[in-house]
Amino acid sequence: MPKFALLLLAWCGWGQNPALVSPAPEHQVPPHVFHKLSAQDRVLFSRLMSVELESVWAGVTAEGYPNCFINELTPLRPGARMVGRARTIRYLPNRKDLREKLYSAGPQLNYKSSEEAQPGDVLVFEAGGETRSAVTGNVTATRLMVRGGAGMVADGAFRDVPMLAAMPLQVYMLRGQAAGVAPVQMSVDYQVPVRIGGVTVIPGDILLGDMHGILVIPAAIAEKVAGRALATVEREEFQRQLLLSGESIYAVYPNLSEANRKKYEEYRKAKGQEP
Amino acid sequence: MPKFALLLLAWCGWGQNPALVSPAPEHQVPPHVFHKLSAQDRVLFSRLMSVELESVWAGVTAEGYPNCFINELTPLRPGARMVGRARTIRYLPNRKDLREKLYSAGPQLNYKSSEEAQPGDVLVFEAGGETRSAVTGNVTATRLMVRGGAGMVADGAFRDVPMLAAMPLQVYMLRGQAAGVAPVQMSVDYQVPVRIGGVTVIPGDILLGDMHGILVIPAAIAEKVAGRALATVEREEFQRQLLLSGESIYAVYPNLSEANRKKYEEYRKAKGQEP
Amino acid sequence: MPKFALLLLAWCGWGQNPALVSPAPEHQVPPHVFHKLSAQDRVLFSRLMSVELESVWAGVTAEGYPNCFINELTPLRPGARMVGRARTIRYLPNRKDLREKLYSAGPQLNYKSSEEAQPGDVLVFEAGGETRSAVTGNVTATRLMVRGGAGMVADGAFRDVPMLAAMPLQVYMLRGQAAGVAPVQMSVDYQVPVRIGGVTVIPGDILLGDMHGILVIPAAIAEKVAGRALATVEREEFQRQLLLSGESIYAVYPNLSEANRKKYEEYRKAKGQEP
Amino acid sequence: MPKFALLLLAWCGWGQNPALVSPAPEHQVPPHVFHKLSAQDRVLFSRLMSVELESVWAGVTAEGYPNCFINELTPLRPGARMVGRARTIRYLPNRKDLREKLYSAGPQLNYKSSEEAQPGDVLVFEAGGETRSAVTGNVTATRLMVRGGAGMVADGAFRDVPMLAAMPLQVYMLRGQAAGVAPVQMSVDYQVPVRIGGVTVIPGDILLGDMHGILVIPAAIAEKVAGRALATVEREEFQRQLLLSGESIYAVYPNLSEANRKKYEEYRKAKGQEP
Amino acid sequence: MPKFALLLLAWCGWGQNPALVSPAPEHQVPPHVFHKLSAQDRVLFSRLMSVELESVWAGVTAEGYPNCFINELTPLRPGARMVGRARTIRYLPNRKDLREKLYSAGPQLNYKSSEEAQPGDVLVFEAGGETRSAVTGNVTATRLMVRGGAGMVADGAFRDVPMLAAMPLQVYMLRGQAAGVAPVQMSVDYQVPVRIGGVTVIPGDILLGDMHGILVIPAAIAEKVAGRALATVEREEFQRQLLLSGESIYAVYPNLSEANRKKYEEYRKAKGQEP
Amino acid sequence: MPKFALLLLAWCGWGQNPALVSPAPEHQVPPHVFHKLSAQDRVLFSRLMSVELESVWAGVTAEGYPNCFINELTPLRPGARMVGRARTIRYLPNRKDLREKLYSAGPQLNYKSSEEAQPGDVLVFEAGGETRSAVTGNVTATRLMVRGGAGMVADGAFRDVPMLAAMPLQVYMLRGQAAGVAPVQMSVDYQVPVRIGGVTVIPGDILLGDMHGILVIPAAIAEKVAGRALATVEREEFQRQLLLSGESIYAVYPNLSEANRKKYEEYRKAKGQEP
Repeated sequence: MPKFALLLLAWCGWGQNPALVSPAPEHQVPPHVFHKLSAQDRVLFSRLMSVELESVWAGVTAEGYPNCFINELTPLRPGARMVGRARTIRYLPNRKDLREKLYSAGPQLNYKSSEEAQPGDVLVFEAGGETRSAVTGNVTATRLMVRGGAGMVADGAFRDVPMLAAMPLQVYMLRGQAAGVAPVQMSVDYQVPVRIGGVTVIPGDILLGDMHGILVIPAAIAEKVAGRALATVEREEFQRQLLLSGESIYAVYPNLSEANRKKYEEYRKAKGQEP
Repeated sequence: MPKFALLLLAWCGWGQNPALVSPAPEHQVPPHVFHKLSAQDRVLFSRLMSVELESVWAGVTAEGYPNCFINELTPLRPGARMVGRARTIRYLPNRKDLREKLYSAGPQLNYKSSEEAQPGDVLVFEAGGETRSAVTGNVTATRLMVRGGAGMVADGAFRDVPMLAAMPLQVYMLRGQAAGVAPVQMSVDYQVPVRIGGVTVIPGDILLGDMHGILVIPAAIAEKVAGRALATVEREEFQRQLLLSGESIYAVYPNLSEANRKKYEEYRKAKGQEP
Repeated sequence: MPKFALLLLAWCGWGQNPALVSPAPEHQVPPHVFHKLSAQDRVLFSRLMSVELESVWAGVTAEGYPNCFINELTPLRPGARMVGRARTIRYLPNRKDLREKLYSAGPQLNYKSSEEAQPGDVLVFEAGGETRSAVTGNVTATRLMVRGGAGMVADGAFRDVPMLAAMPLQVYMLRGQAAGVAPVQMSVDYQVPVRIGGVTVIPGDILLGDMHGILVIPAAIAEKVAGRALATVEREEFQRQLLLSGESIYAVYPNLSEANRKKYEEYRKAKGQEP
Repeated sequence: MPKFALLLLAWCGWGQNPALVSPAPEHQVPPHVFHKLSAQDRVLFSRLMSVELESVWAGVTAEGYPNCFINELTPLRPGARMVGRARTIRYLPNRKDLREKLYSAGPQLNYKSSEEAQPGDVLVFEAGGETRSAVTGNVTATRLMVRGGAGMVADGAFRDVPMLAAMPLQVYMLRGQAAGVAPVQMSVDYQVPVRIGGVTVIPGDILLGDMHGILVIPAAIAEKVAGRALATVEREEFQRQLLLSGESIYAVYPNLSEANRKKYEEYRKAKGQEP
Repeated sequence: MPKFALLLLAWCGWGQNPALVSPAPEHQVPPHVFHKLSAQDRVLFSRLMSVELESVWAGVTAEGYPNCFINELTPLRPGARMVGRARTIRYLPNRKDLREKLYSAGPQLNYKSSEEAQPGDVLVFEAGGETRSAVTGNVTATRLMVRGGAGMVADGAFRDVPMLAAMPLQVYMLRGQAAGVAPVQMSVDYQVPVRIGGVTVIPGDILLGDMHGILVIPAAIAEKVAGRALATVEREEFQRQLLLSGESIYAVYPNLSEANRKKYEEYRKAKGQEP
Repeated sequence: MPKFALLLLAWCGWGQNPALVSPAPEHQVPPHVFHKLSAQDRVLFSRLMSVELESVWAGVTAEGYPNCFINELTPLRPGARMVGRARTIRYLPNRKDLREKLYSAGPQLNYKSSEEAQPGDVLVFEAGGETRSAVTGNVTATRLMVRGGAGMVADGAFRDVPMLAAMPLQVYMLRGQAAGVAPVQMSVDYQVPVRIGGVTVIPGDILLGDMHGILVIPAAIAEKVAGRALATVEREEFQRQLLLSGESIYAVYPNLSEANRKKYEEYRKAKGQEP
């Protein structure tokens, strides 16, 4: 995008305000994830790394999913973008009979979820807002990281927070907590739909996280909305440059004025694109 | 209990403070429930109607379930006690794809749950605290009532609240709401463990509700803790009368003083009971 | 409605569950309001007193106003219904310069609003959730009552609460408070759109309050939605009686089964109505 | 006050709106308290029972105590007024070492406070908003009642709530709770200043509670502010009657118009009082 | 200030704790704002950039505005100070009739406000705490920046947060959000007094923001309080150095001891100032 | 620890994922504290600087203190660890009579506490969540720093936040605030047990703070739990390296598999340790 911006500036004779042109951060899929991804996911994840979250949001909403953004959680690495696929675990308040039944049937689901995680997976823990106990911590995160996992999300708390913050995973949570999972809560369901910050997350959903929250993209429309967002990048950048050059907002947004529409056509023609 | 209290007063020559003796309210299973209950449930429910909720709480906690009381919900009929068996429904924030899948597979779960309700059942809706939309209302409650249902509980909202308040069901909720369930939420799971007010409720749990909240009793221990609570009634009433007669709290609670222990033995002997 | 219900019961031979038929409370415009209302308002207000709030909600939503129900406030008289017309006042945190400018220009707006109130008016105070200070109290309420006012609403606090509770006005608020308006807040705007419990209220809106909240009806559609709600009363009562008679919910709601549809036509024919 | 109102109505020829004259509830010190009070307290408590809480608030504020009203707690008996003297207990989160040290040194402070309560005392529990555990319940309340106690206040929870609600004590709390005090909290301090709902309560303070909260009156000014409030009753009632008779609010409040001032003088003269 | 500190250290022979002397950050009006400011504003803004916020707070409070600090919002650039002039916009929950009326009368007020912004302006959005929808985002911010705007403030949410964080504007908000303004809210008023975080902000107010919040300075007293704050810098720094040199707090604050008062006079004399 | 990690990697032939090995941050007691500490405290504080907070938490909980972690406060320097000894001050809402009595008896307790602070002390302010007024600020912090203090903690607000953030002290708080302590609150008790974020802190407690909160360690067990935590470091690091090398979580945690147990014994033998 910065290259593109410079081109634009050169072409237009703009740039009276060079100090204002703050290049958008360039996001990349972290190496420990990228190298393990399938070819198809490499394309999808990279696309989602390169577009504005709000552009993707527009597509998700247009497809009939207006309630798709989680903004109640805090990321441990605010400057990093997260792209991944949801693997869900549901917690409930601790209760002896159910706990004994579940834990005698197999491993705790935080361990299981990290052990079974596929490259690019994000573990998503529904904890009902509970922060007096962590859902999991460093051990799960380390195994997840080795498996190529992309992040962890909880509407609750994680422990070992400084260690998590030092890993190349993104982590979203309400708060940290030193206390382990027992005796406050327990994991009860795996790979079921869950509630996080007022949004339903389904196993397999594509998650796109920025510093202000996480966009939940149903898997079936992920390619489509990623593609559509990519298509709007050029026009949005053109509009942004018009504003940076001093044009009135009324001539630029939400629609280009007649004069600017023509400029845009010429610009596209000059680049050899369809007008 | 009042009869018992009067006897006690007569026997002991107590009663200097008659104005203070406020008879505890006598609770009964509502007729529309009672007549449909099995013989076994009539006994269990009636016992639970006749003891202090805190006495049952002591038993539930002693059995290893310290996190068993829901105190975040408000009852529509504060003077009435609720005894019933949990039938659970889980809601999530609305989402087109999951909604279409679920609703094409069968009726909405609020309707289904009232249709399948057994005498004495309490519908328990996990709504994650959502109060911008009701989980259900008058229609579900009416069908539930006809089926012999004992109540409805939601960590969310019901609609048609004045109509609900006029029914012989107990209703616990966070708030009322006129708005129906769509487009804010949807029912997704039926008869699964749910989270209500920080407590896990499992289908079949026995619920005991008073004006300050709902005690959740695992079915397997319900008979036991109801029996144990009944056994403490006499002693607790004896202690209360000691206090009403002006005894120091130190001579009565938590343990009877030597003198009062003897009084208690004599009293039980006089009633033909084992000392 | 009870008469109607009895008729229905007689006609259908229903009534196996007479104990369950809890007649809905019959609401009436309070005399101190009714006698001062215009003929047109008497009709409108009385209609709104006689239908289910949720039926009116359906109409308001259908007209394009889905965000129309305030459920964050508590009524002082839960059993009473409020119907009235909004007269709005906006408060802001206290600030010397603005306060002096406004208060030198005329009376405080709580006094002004009660002085200018028309019969059936409801004073609506936007207080931004402030409960450390009351917006107004007994004096304003008394003048409002004498003027034929129907109620007071604040997303804040009133003072003199026991006196307000003894008046034939309905009052909705977050909490009570003894402290007067200064030095915490001040009235700044009169008869402007305000925010109450997440809903925009415009001067002249018709407000319909029940124990669970307040429905906000734009004046332009009030007649229409009141009429439409009235038209659904009979069908809803028929559905309710079907449920009370023991019909499955699936045969009644949301649509009548074929058999019940026929019953309904016959019933309407018997009453001399169009099928 | 009702007698006074009727007199006024007769004298003035007012009463066009008799339906509007809702007599204020007449409050009395409960018999179990009154009979044990000292002569001096009988006078003070009775005075505080007979005036508007807001009138006393005005005096307390004028004496330099603007932060004196607790409005975050709910009374169990909304229609009853509480007058009493604060006896304070401070709770902290449970902690083994401190608990063992304190509890080996003497009885738990809830028991101690009820045992040492003087007639008219109100037990005030600082619990820091903790509602996952009760500070105390029925046993303490019963002993307190027998001692002539007037109420219990907690910025936390009580247990045995239906039993408390049936006693002639007033009780203010955030919520009810079945769970006992351990293992969540413990009593640590007795008769120290405490924080309740954002107000500091000092042992010996006079508490005046209505349905909307509790006014905290420093003991040293209690007689003075009670007397001053009594002195404003007549004028306030006169103003209220002026409003009920249809006078403009501008002629009545905050100051009487010239005409009304004269009416007031005549009225006082007619009653043989100084103008 | 660092130069001043070094001078002081040299003069006094202090400096035993050099590691403790953390120079306060030096703030400057950002170039894109500064170059467009009037001469008068350059002086005022620069002064406010150079003094402690708490020193200005003292002046504002002394002038009769004790409720002047907003501390409920989070800045996107915690290390940057914001100085600017308030331009206000008020939002309300969305409502079809009002929205249509307003939006047919002119552009949305977020666009209008950025288009009309003057150098040094801060857009201030009253959103009533709504965070399910953003009030505006990147487009408005870009136009504002080009116009020389200094910041944006909302008691709600902005979108495009990573882009905002990369701009030389300061931004304060409750949370971020991807969702646009419709259908949750709408802009209704422009350049009216608004409520932000419990403080009233009036168009033209001078805003001074640090990492912990925003001080609201009425325009009429801005020069005065800025000047007064400047005058206290030297004394405060002297006091700070006394503390750094190891003096007891009792000899320094709130008033200098006799000995230190003399040191201060000598120090001022040595600098050629009035004692 | 990094050295240790490198050794391990060399020894095991591990390191396929070198990019994943993010060395844990190495914490040290700040020089201004360290140089003033007693020899004993230097050892204790340094140990606590070098182990995982969660490892210490495990020891504290095992000793019978499960409620020992404060996670409701935000640190001003998230990357720094705090180790110190609690010196407590309790605040209450302002009240004239008590304030006059206390403040005439001696200096305000924030000043006193910093003046009396010993090297390594942390001032702990119980403010009951009050954030409309700061408990103290720059002056107290500077004196504390000079005395060798390690930090300040408040369940309330501090002022002068940018200055605090520039000091080598750690600071935990709910929010910042420009407003001073009066007229909202006042200091009332010194060196008494206090409530912070749901945990009881006793004077002399050892506090261990990380970015996610503060662990409260009773002084009597501090040496013991610090030692125990140190003993687990090696095993935890071994487990972590196993995970980094790609082992299944089931073979590593919570217990080593038979094969890994043998590896661990060999590894310890190779280092000359007891198996």
